[in-house]
Order: sequence, then structure tokens, then C-alpha cells
Amino acid sequence: MEKKDLKPLLAPKSIAVVGVSQGRSLGGRVIDNLTKLNFAGKIYPVNPKYEEIKRMRCYPSVTAIGETVDMVMIALARPHVLKVLKEAADTGARAAVIPSSGFGETGEPGKALENDIRSIAGEANMAVCGPNCYGFVNFHGRVAAFSGPLYEPLIPGRIGLVMQSGAITHSITDPFSHRSVGLSFLISSGNETVVSGSDYIEYMIDDEHTRVIATFVEGLRDVESFIRAAEHAREKEKPIVVVKVGRSQKAQKAALAHTGSLAGPDEIFEALFRQKGVIRVRDLDELIETTIALEKIKRNVGSRVGVVTISGGASGLISDLAEENRLQLADLSPETVRNLRQILPSFGTPSNPLDCTGSAAGDLGIFKGGIEHLSRDSNVDLVAVGLNSSCGTTEYDNRLYEGMANCAKEVWQKGSDKSFVIMTYTSNTFHPKICQMFRDTDIPVLQGLQKSVLALGHATRYSEFLRNRNTGTAERVSSKAYSGKEWNAKDGVLSEYDSKKILSSCGVDCIEEILAGSRDKSIEASEKLGYPVVLKVVSPDIPHKTEAQAIRINIGSKEEVMRAYDEILENATIFKPNAEIQGILVQKMAPKGIETILGVKNDPQIGPVLMFGLGGIFVELLGDFSLRIPPIVEREALSMVMNIKAAKLFEGIRGAKKADVGAIVRNLLNLSTFAVEHRDILSEVDINPFVVFEEGRGGSALDALITVKS
Amino acid sequence: MEKKDLKPLLAPKSIAVVGVSQGRSLGGRVIDNLTKLNFAGKIYPVNPKYEEIKRMRCYPSVTAIGETVDMVMIALARPHVLKVLKEAADTGARAAVIPSSGFGETGEPGKALENDIRSIAGEANMAVCGPNCYGFVNFHGRVAAFSGPLYEPLIPGRIGLVMQSGAITHSITDPFSHRSVGLSFLISSGNETVVSGSDYIEYMIDDEHTRVIATFVEGLRDVESFIRAAEHAREKEKPIVVVKVGRSQKAQKAALAHTGSLAGPDEIFEALFRQKGVIRVRDLDELIETTIALEKIKRNVGSRVGVVTISGGASGLISDLAEENRLQLADLSPETVRNLRQILPSFGTPSNPLDCTGSAAGDLGIFKGGIEHLSRDSNVDLVAVGLNSSCGTTEYDNRLYEGMANCAKEVWQKGSDKSFVIMTYTSNTFHPKICQMFRDTDIPVLQGLQKSVLALGHATRYSEFLRNRNTGTAERVSSKAYSGKEWNAKDGVLSEYDSKKILSSCGVDCIEEILAGSRDKSIEASEKLGYPVVLKVVSPDIPHKTEAQAIRINIGSKEEVMRAYDEILENATIFKPNAEIQGILVQKMAPKGIETILGVKNDPQIGPVLMFGLGGIFVELLGDFSLRIPPIVEREALSMVMNIKAAKLFEGIRGAKKADVGAIVRNLLNLSTFAVEHRDILSEVDINPFVVFEEGRGGSALDALITVKS
Repeated sequence: MEKKDLKPLLAPKSIAVVGVSQGRSLGGRVIDNLTKLNFAGKIYPVNPKYEEIKRMRCYPSVTAIGETVDMVMIALARPHVLKVLKEAADTGARAAVIPSSGFGETGEPGKALENDIRSIAGEANMAVCGPNCYGFVNFHGRVAAFSGPLYEPLIPGRIGLVMQSGAITHSITDPFSHRSVGLSFLISSGNETVVSGSDYIEYMIDDEHTRVIATFVEGLRDVESFIRAAEHAREKEKPIVVVKVGRSQKAQKAALAHTGSLAGPDEIFEALFRQKGVIRVRDLDELIETTIALEKIKRNVGSRVGVVTISGGASGLISDLAEENRLQLADLSPETVRNLRQILPSFGTPSNPLDCTGSAAGDLGIFKGGIEHLSRDSNVDLVAVGLNSSCGTTEYDNRLYEGMANCAKEVWQKGSDKSFVIMTYTSNTFHPKICQMFRDTDIPVLQGLQKSVLALGHATRYSEFLRNRNTGTAERVSSKAYSGKEWNAKDGVLSEYDSKKILSSCGVDCIEEILAGSRDKSIEASEKLGYPVVLKVVSPDIPHKTEAQAIRINIGSKEEVMRAYDEILENATIFKPNAEIQGILVQKMAPKGIETILGVKNDPQIGPVLMFGLGGIFVELLGDFSLRIPPIVEREALSMVMNIKAAKLFEGIRGAKKADVGAIVRNLLNLSTFAVEHRDILSEVDINPFVVFEEGRGGSALDALITVKS
Repeated sequence: MEKKDLKPLLAPKSIAVVGVSQGRSLGGRVIDNLTKLNFAGKIYPVNPKYEEIKRMRCYPSVTAIGETVDMVMIALARPHVLKVLKEAADTGARAAVIPSSGFGETGEPGKALENDIRSIAGEANMAVCGPNCYGFVNFHGRVAAFSGPLYEPLIPGRIGLVMQSGAITHSITDPFSHRSVGLSFLISSGNETVVSGSDYIEYMIDDEHTRVIATFVEGLRDVESFIRAAEHAREKEKPIVVVKVGRSQKAQKAALAHTGSLAGPDEIFEALFRQKGVIRVRDLDELIETTIALEKIKRNVGSRVGVVTISGGASGLISDLAEENRLQLADLSPETVRNLRQILPSFGTPSNPLDCTGSAAGDLGIFKGGIEHLSRDSNVDLVAVGLNSSCGTTEYDNRLYEGMANCAKEVWQKGSDKSFVIMTYTSNTFHPKICQMFRDTDIPVLQGLQKSVLALGHATRYSEFLRNRNTGTAERVSSKAYSGKEWNAKDGVLSEYDSKKILSSCGVDCIEEILAGSRDKSIEASEKLGYPVVLKVVSPDIPHKTEAQAIRINIGSKEEVMRAYDEILENATIFKPNAEIQGILVQKMAPKGIETILGVKNDPQIGPVLMFGLGGIFVELLGDFSLRIPPIVEREALSMVMNIKAAKLFEGIRGAKKADVGAIVRNLLNLSTFAVEHRDILSEVDINPFVVFEEGRGGSALDALITVKS
């Protein structure tokens, strides 16, 4: 798929603003904003009622401009939009912004209008922003095609924002300005009728100024293009930070089948984001701190954080928050510990977080020494300095915190190869003087401890993600190719026997079994497999064999086989008189092991999703499972297994032997390939249980069910 | 225990400040702060070097003042503190503040000095604040006996703060001032050598101005007095909000026994706080928002929150955050839905959170109408209005948000009986003009969505706690009183048989069993109990019977009993040749049920702690258990059972019948009484498993172990 050309939209050389008036108007505000940001190109106000407006010549129509403009801003009420868009297209304009609301968000007639916009834009190959949006600001290109209020100072920076919601666009910019943090783009994408969020993200990934991208998403219409953008972002080492709403709706989603019921769409998005290195945050505050951290922190930063404060209380609090939010605190080297003993007061303790003690407030040398020693320690990758964030109402504070901030800055400027951050104890913004000091350094100032720790966790894990991205082999069997035509599905479901035959041929380890058509054949099969065995009915009409009492386990002799065979057939017939019975399945009785579930669900939006969890009540009752989007590599399969909460079970608790995790990984990899290669025919795969034996003994699918698309 | 008299300390009529100098000094800053707050009493500067200081007469010593002062502020370095404290005591002063550091926090010699302080204060019945602190501010009493910087504006309010850490005291005050939120007390309690955090809290509970108390705790030295304060606070309906550090150290605590290993001290604190209605927050930001919410919101507020915004994005986000943070969103009444349809644009949806749509930015009537209809709905207890928090750099915003804020205020002023809050999308502070508008209303302004939702959750759950506090009967059997002398403990552990005999006599349902001394007696016992039975060895030397293979289950006949008896004795002897064998225990084989664990651990700090969890790997692997401090009432026992993550299991999943939760509750209540009445002798009780049968059939302890204090 070709990338859309967004240059005429986001970096136009000329802009026509349709709908400017003498009084207050959207169009007027756009022209004010363009002027405020010193737009270097040509601006053409359009309104048939005026000859001149805001000291510029005003044109009666886009056509009347007489030359082709790059972009047309259509600041008109809904009824007039289509006509002007068509006119713009006819004059050769390559882009448009439609701030007007009243489209898809208002129901069916509005959606029809969006279809018209889409077809005009498609024919003319126009990039259209909106409708139902504020437009955008390109800070470096000095284009403020923006109909909302703009907060000063307007600082060009390295953070690019794409927000679907207008109110959120509005809310998010003020805090950045207020803290003197620059942006590269501010895009209010609205209904994304033509240009989608992923398109903007792609543009910003290629943009030299943008280093971090953040986005507020209400709905992802085209998941595939988002995945492509995420992969592109990973190559360019530009993190994407996302707030995606709709988490709480998961409970309402139809839960069709077993695997399906466990993984609502939001859990799938969560898995997708994690797997692709997209950083999901919970609210706007966390988005702000996380982007500010990512904007400055080195991409190759390690995960070991050293913290310096002058307070035992703050150190204790940071230590708690770090553990709870999976932020790794460095173990200081013995040398650092020795050096710190030299500078700390006798009652100080050289540990991490480092409490320089209250003495450091009087003697900033201690504080600076603490920062210096941590920044020299090869066990420390990132130095975080905890400070009170004085709003600056007392002179005492200003002096003290300016001094402290200076210490951190000085150490950093000495050419330390570490990343540095300041994190403040509460969420208020520093005194402007201190903000100013840091503005042009590579030291980000994060506000509030919980948020700072979350942001640092995101930043260090992102670097870890980048380091790991090329590790892990993708060795797995290529599936036997099935078209699905040869599959004997009844109401979309294959029998257990057929399901396992197919999975087995594609590299999933299944229990040894023989389908027997008669009592004698059952005995023969049992003796071939060796006792003890399991007998169960094979019938597409009886998917739940236990319920029908059509299964017998732990059968140890010929006599028992005979009895079991008869009973199963009888029970099956009682349970469903006209059931189609394909035979009796004789399985080797599996040794004891841990029951797990391996599954695939083919999501209509996202495609195949791989699932792993423990059998029994863990998945159902505790939601303890993990998901990944196939294809996956070995490292990802291993993390699927080890990331479930009960993963310790595999290490062999209570005297049990270690479980064969390698076998689970191998089977997940093969199931992953199978799912990808058969995505067009598969609906679901449910391998339940897959029993894992002790280390070295592998594992076996005891039961499995394939469902195909209808 | 008598309450300490803190009036001379916190509301003194006269203060001597020892250690004032002409230059910058702690004492000088104290006098400046006292002056700044217009202290109405007498101030006596003390320094032998000066005759006059800061235009006040300066005294050579406390004695030289010639009359008894209420409180002496000893702003001197450590070596001089004791002498002056003694002098103050001798002159009849009733209180002192010691800001100086270098005491217990620096090691043993400092601790010895604290002992001296304690004995001087004890003899003279003096209330001493510190050492190693900033002192305190009593805002309504206009006493700023405070050696740190004070932020303006200094507004008397209803929030009382007690902070152990000096740096945290410092950090927390700036945000409150900056947001024009008043305080009643700001207390930096330091090492709490004489007056403890709980003492200050008790004082503030009795203080008419204080409505909410917040505290930062590094260590709780006297848990019992904290519990008393919490109970007192509950009576007076004054919530205590606490940040307690040390959560991450839990892993380091010695884990002696099974139950003990699962409940480190922090989990116990967590349980204690929840049970006593103490609101635990994670960091200072959350403390600030939570206290601001609690200061204004009505104590009898219900839990059903109605949210009004003008943004679909923000509404979606709030909905997600509410679900994740257990904030209950109201179901709007049909009438409200009808009324909202009347005022919303055609494309709007009357739901909760209510998105008034962007149209409301142009037509504030829609916004106001939305607030009005929600505030009239009897299904809504609290109305939260979501707003962007403009820092006020554009005139557009000021107008818009001032208008919106006015709408909320107007509706509230019409005499709605609901509680109201404003919550902002990001953490920046409103424009001062808007802050000012709300300052004297009962509408708190909360900052940042995640934090606001957390704060509202705390506030509504606190009201729920108050409503429930007097419900739930405490019916339970009174334990048979044991002194422990009659218990036959070996190395502190009682045998399974003895443990169950004792527990059974105290109302714990135990499985029917007979201790048999011979093979014949085993057979006799089995036949009396009825087959199937279980046989196991009873020996204080073999606590783990499975390991020794000294247990046989599901024994169905006389012959099997005989065989089992012999095997068990043989295996026991092999396992431990000189084991003292008290006999063979014959138990009725219990029907199938859910295995749970009931336990007690007598914590050295907190006393008996009751524990409940599922058997098997749930507790160990997933930390899925609940704790309470006995005595508990029925409601608390039920919440113990239903609060574990896997509680759904008791409802009967996968076709199983409902479990007899009532039996668990009854047994927990009886165990609770037993634990309280035997707290002096018990170390631990471990009932594992306690099997719960289907509803109406009760439950049985199959195994139990009592450990006594050494």
C-alpha cells in the first residue's frame, strides 16, 4: 500500500481560507493563527462579501484566486462544505481541512456526506483533514491551519500529537506550553474520513523534527495500517504513546466461544500494543509525562535507574513506586558505595534511592557529589534526581532548588553518557526560572512521583524493546497447507479427531490416538497404544463429551475397554439420539502434567490472535492468560508463557519437577505459523487441555477443536 | 490510656524562641513566621548575646523571662537542646518544639538523647514536637511555630496534615497554597520522640476546624494507638488519608511459617487501613486530590456518580478510568434520559458520562441543562463536571471555562442536595480567576482525570464505609478459655489431633475423627465413623504427613484399614526412627468440596491477623488471599471471603453447586474470637485445608496446626 502524500496538507506553500468574515469566525481565527506563527507562504482569504479582510485581498471564490493553492481550509457550515471541496479539487488543490462538524458523528445522513468527501478526495488525490476537527499546527513549518485557540509560547519541539477528539486536543496543548515543552505537530484529526491517524503517524515518523509521537484514539478503523505504522516507528526508533478509550466496553462484547470469551477486543489491543512497542498510557497526565521523558532520554538507555534525593521519605516513596510499577532500581557498585560513604554525613546510608539527607540542603556539595557518583557508576544507566517542585513563592526555595537544579545540570554537562531526569514530588510546575534553565538541556523535568515513575518505566522498557527487537529466532515448522475444502466441518466445527490430525500435521504435539470403528478395533488400538488408555466418542454432534458421559479415562484392561466402549455408545445415543457417530477414539492415557490452554481466535478487526493460559479455572476466574498477534518469534512465545501470573508453577513448586516450557514454546510457534497461514479459513482453534510434562518430556494436546469461518 | 494534652503545644498563649540571632537563623525564621501569621500571644526571643532582636526584647535565658511560657521553641544545635529543655521544664513550660536534627535518625548516640528527651518530658508532663522536624502551623490559631519556608497565601482551612518527613512537609504545602486550598494544621512531626503522629491525629479529630486529616508515615511505632485514633476518627466522620512507605520491603521480611509467608507486614497494614476506613493513597498527588475531594464532599454522599462533559473523548476516558478504579457511574433515570433528549443536539446521546457535545461550547445552556438534569436525578448522588483546565493564556478559554464553571456553580447554588466536583482533564491548575470563583463554594476542583477518579472513588467508598460501620452482627461463640498450660506443644507446635480438638471446642467445624492407639482400635473407629475413611499418623515429630507417606485416604474396608495402619506406622518409623507417635488418626473421608485455608498469625506489632484464601496454589502463586484484624463482624467475614479474586468459584462455576459461604463466615467469626481471646498464647493457627461443601452442607477442617508463642 502506498503512503498518502500529506505534504500539501501539512506543509503547504499556499493556503486558501474559505469563510473568513469581519466579525469573529472560524476562518478569521485560522488567519490569526497562521499570522501568529508567521506562516511564510501565501494566504488567500475567500469570502464573496469582502474585497479585503485583515489587510489581505479577499477573493470571492477559490476559483477566483486564479492560481492553484496547495491547501484549502473550508471554515464553513456543513451545507456548504461539499461544494467548496469540489471546487478546490477542480482548481487542482492537493489538500483540504474541514473543521465543520455535523458529519459521521451525527448519524447516517452525516456518514453519507463523508462518503461524498471520500470520493471527491479519492478522485482528486487530495489529502483531507477532518471533518469535525480543529485542523493542525506544524510548528517547525510555521503552519497553523488551526481553528481552535493556541497557547503561547508556541515552541517548535520534538513531540508530535495526533488527537481524534477536539476537546482533548484543546486540553493537551496548554500543559505543554505552560511547561515550555515544544511540539513538532499538533493534529486534531477528527472523523478521519480521508486521512487517518496512522497516516499522520507515518508522516511524523519520516519527519526529521519529530522524536516522539502521541495519540488519543477513540476508535482504530484500520488496524492493519496502524500495525504497519507501529513497525515503521520501531525501525526509526520513534516511540508511539497512545491513550485508547473503550477499555470498559469489553464486558459488553459478545463472547461466542471459549477462547473468544476470554479475550475481548481491548485485551487484544493491549497485547497488540505491547507486542509492537506501542506505549499505552491511562490518561492525559501520563501521556504528557511519558512523552516529555521520551523526548529527551537516550534511545539506548539501559533499564537500571539510580535515584538521588535529599529526603528519606521521598526515597522510600520512590522505592515503593518503582517496585509497583516495574521500574528497575540499580544495584550500586561497591566503588560507588565507598565513594558515597566519603561524602555523606556519618548517619547517611549509601543506597539506591540515595538519600543525601537534609544536610545536603545546607551543603549542596553533598547533593552534587551524590549525583556525580551515581552518574559514574557503570551499574547505573539513568540518573533521576528527585526534587520538590517549588512554585517559587519563597526566596528560600528559589535559591535552594535553583542550586539543586544547577548541580544536576552541571554534572550532566560534564559529558556524562547517562540519561538524566528531574522528577518532582508533586505535580505543580517549577518556577519559570528553573523551567527555563532546563529548557535547552537534555534533562526532562517530570512532575509528580507516581507519574514520573510510570514515565521512566515506559521509557526504559521502550529501550529494552528496541534492544530485543532483533533477537529471538523464528524457527518453526511451516504448516502443511490446507485450503479448508478437505476439512469435514459440521456447522463450522471440525471433530476432535480431525482437528488434532490437522494440528498434528502442522507441528502441534498431540496425544497418540487411533480412531476405532468397532469394539474389536478399540481393543486392538488399546493394545497397540499400550494401557492405560482413554476412550471417547467422536461425533460432530457431541462437542462436550463429559456432559454426555461419553468419555472414560484410565482404562487398564481389555475387559474395561469392552465395557467402556459399550457404555460410551449407549450414553452418546441417550444424550443425542440421532448423533452422527464417527467412531470411538482410543488415546494413550497421558502422564500427569500441568494443564494449559493454547488457542487462536481470528478477530474480524485484527486477524489471528494467539492465546495461552493455564487450564482449569485460572483463565476463566482470574483472567490469567496472555495474547500475541502471530507470527511470533521464540522470545515472544517464551514471554507469553512466562508473563501469566501463575508462571511460577512451571518452575516446579511444592517438590514438583520443572515443566517442559520449551515444549509449550515450540507448540505456540507452530500454532502461530498455522494460524497465519490459514487465517483465511480459520475462525478459532481451541487446544484444551494441552498437558505439559516434566522437563525433557514435552507436552501433548489431549483435546482440540478447530472452528472455521462461515 | 489518657490522651496527651497538646493544647500548650499547638495552641500556646506564649512562646519562647531560643536561638534567635541577628543574621539568618532557624529561630529568626520562626519569629518571622509567627509574625507573618499574626500570632496573638506573646513571643519571647531568647539569646544571651542580644538585648533586642527583631524589635522585641531579647532574654538571656528561658528562666530570665520571669514568667511561665506555654511553649519553648528550641532552635539550637543538638548539643544545647537537652539543657534548654530541662530549663524549660523547670520553669513550668508545658510544651516544646525541637527542630534540630542529629538524634535517633543518626544512630545509637542520638537514640540515647531521645531517651533523655522522653524522660524530661515525661517527668514534666510536656508535649514535645520533634526532634528533626520543622515544627508546625496552626492556621486558625495563627501559630506558625515553624522553621521552614511558608508559602503564601496562608489560608485557614479544613485539612490537617501530619508529616513525618521534613522534605515531604515542604513539598506538600506549596500545591495547596498554589491552589488556594486552606489548611487547619501543618505538622512536621519528625522523630516523634514524645508526641506521636497518632497523638496529633487525635487532637485534630477533636478540632472543630479540621474535616480531613492526611498523614505521611515512614514507620508506625505504636499501632494500637493508631488503631484507636482511626476508630475515633470514624466516630467523628473525619477521614484519615495516609501515604505509608515501605511497601516494597515486604519481600525482605522473614517468612517463618506458611500463613506468615503470605502476609508480610505491608499486607497487614493494607488490611488494617481498609478495615478501619483509613484511606491509603500511593503518592503525594493522590493525597492532595483525595483530601481536596474529602474536604468538600458531603459525608453522606452515595456512591452513584453522574459525569457531565462536552467531549466524547473525555467521556470515554472517564468511563474507562471509573471502571478500572471502582468508581460507580449512575444509571440515569428514564425521566432524566427523556429530559436530556430535549436539550441535546439530535446526534447527542443521553448517557453517563454525559457528552453534551461540542455544541455546548457555543451554547452553554446545553451544558448547564445537562448538569441540572443530572443533579435532579434521584439515581445520581454526586455530580462531577469534567472540564479542560485552562491556564488562561487565551481569552477564548477564559470566557468559555469561566462560563462553564459558572454553570456548575449556579446549579449547585440552587440548593441541590447533591455533592458537586469539578474534575479537569490534565493536572495543570486553573486560571486564578476560576480558582477564586470556586474557593468559597463547596465545589472542589480536582486536577487530572486519573487522580480525580481515584479521589472520588476514595470519597464515595469512605461514605459507604460510614454507612456500613454499624451494620453486621458480631454473633459468634465465645471461645472455651484456654491458658495454654494444658496444651501439649512440642517445640511450640501442637499435634494435628490436639489442634483440632481445641479449635473444635471453640466453634471451628472439624472433620469427625477418632485417635486410635492400635490396629483394632483403628478398625473400630473406622466402623464407627463409617467408610470411606482416612488414616494418618499423629506425631509432633512429623508435621508433614504426606512427605513421610504416613497418610492413606479413601479407605473402604476393614482389610484396607489393617494394611494402611501397618504401612503408615512403618513409613513413619522409616521417615523418623525416633518419632514420638501418639497414635493413628481415623477420619471420616470428607465429601468433595472447595479447599480453602483459614489462618491466624499473631503479628508482634499488630496482634492477631486473620487470613482467608483458597487452598492449592492460589495463595502461594497468585497472592490471592484476604486479611482482617479480629475481632470482625459478619459483614467483614463475608467480605473477606468474597474479596478474594477467585471468589466466583463459590457461586458454582461449570455446573458445580453453590458453596456454603455461610459456613466459612461462621468459622471465620469463631476463629476470630478464638484468636482474640488467646492472643497472649497463640503464635499461629493454620487450618489447611478447610473444605467447603455445597450450600447447606457446611464445611470441615481436615487438617489444622496451632503454634504457640515461645
